[in-house]
Amino acid sequence: MAAPLHIHLDFISPYGYFASLRVEALAARHGRTVAWHPMLLGVAVLKVMGLKPLMDTPLKGDYVDRDVRRYAREHGLPMQRQPRDPVMNPLACGRALAWVNRHLPERAGEVVHAIYRAYWGEAQDLSTPVSLEPFVGKTIARAAAGEEAAALLRAEVDASIAAGVFGSPTLIIDGEPFWGVDKLEQAQRWLERGGW
Amino acid sequence: MAAPLHIHLDFISPYGYFASLRVEALAARHGRTVAWHPMLLGVAVLKVMGLKPLMDTPLKGDYVDRDVRRYAREHGLPMQRQPRDPVMNPLACGRALAWVNRHLPERAGEVVHAIYRAYWGEAQDLSTPVSLEPFVGKTIARAAAGEEAAALLRAEVDASIAAGVFGSPTLIIDGEPFWGVDKLEQAQRWLERGGW
Repeated sequence: MAAPLHIHLDFISPYGYFASLRVEALAARHGRTVAWHPMLLGVAVLKVMGLKPLMDTPLKGDYVDRDVRRYAREHGLPMQRQPRDPVMNPLACGRALAWVNRHLPERAGEVVHAIYRAYWGEAQDLSTPVSLEPFVGKTIARAAAGEEAAALLRAEVDASIAAGVFGSPTLIIDGEPFWGVDKLEQAQRWLERGGW
Repeated sequence: MAAPLHIHLDFISPYGYFASLRVEALAARHGRTVAWHPMLLGVAVLKVMGLKPLMDTPLKGDYVDRDVRRYAREHGLPMQRQPRDPVMNPLACGRALAWVNRHLPERAGEVVHAIYRAYWGEAQDLSTPVSLEPFVGKTIARAAAGEEAAALLRAEVDASIAAGVFGSPTLIIDGEPFWGVDKLEQAQRWLERGGW
């Protein structure tokens, strides 16, 4: 059985949302499954890379605002939240996914989709564990409030930095990283040809 | 006659090199021509955006090094220079193109290809006007040393910043910007459907 495609996502990332809707089809075409990993742009970009937030970067913030809206229009994706809207604290969402990966791994994809749809598609506030409950259920929402989930997220984030992940989405195929939703076409060619 | 596709490039940018080899075919498929514009990452990234050079950014530098080599392998492109090699001063090249755009616009594409092939494909040093002569000829190389070429490059760079250009390559189609060589597929869909 071939290894899963590993995808690293931050829930505050619209590009992560877009990639989450395409990666399972990509994996399935090549007999793979998807392993979903929470990462934190706040750690990678601000602390490790020493950069400012994307939307606060002159020129680039304006471009990303336009590019994200354009991508959603092109693909007809629900998006009630816009890139310049205030950003939630992503810890509860990340902790929920980290806990699910350990204890209910078969539900990870469903949880990722539920969170992204609620946050980007419906502009819900998911910044606290209790706010997650309508979307992921009571068990996962409560677990997201616990110490274990916090520790599991720290471990996921440490592992993502160690793997060189700095952006959302990052798809890793047998150790080969592809950063950005715009890289999915190249990742597909990589899978088709078995690398090059 | 439809407006040309405007592409903004820095000659130190390997992604600009890659895009330069594809954009004319994209334009031709849609009855367009290409207008080639020099931009300077040193102005856009360091001064306007306030970021550090790409290759000096933790995690991202390593990724770009890998990604650039991978793209060249995938497409079988000549590349004697690598992303981590010392970077030339791009002013002479940018000035040459700015001068050509004003005085010999029909040769702009040829000049872009000659410079990129020499710099990235053959690892030539093109940091002075005289070093350009074997690749672009005596007239253009001499003009690149003059005040007029310097002023024309400043005007091109100012115009690119005013248009929101911050990265190389940036393709602008009827005012719509697409940043990065990985965006050429989406730009093609934009042209095919007439926007969305």
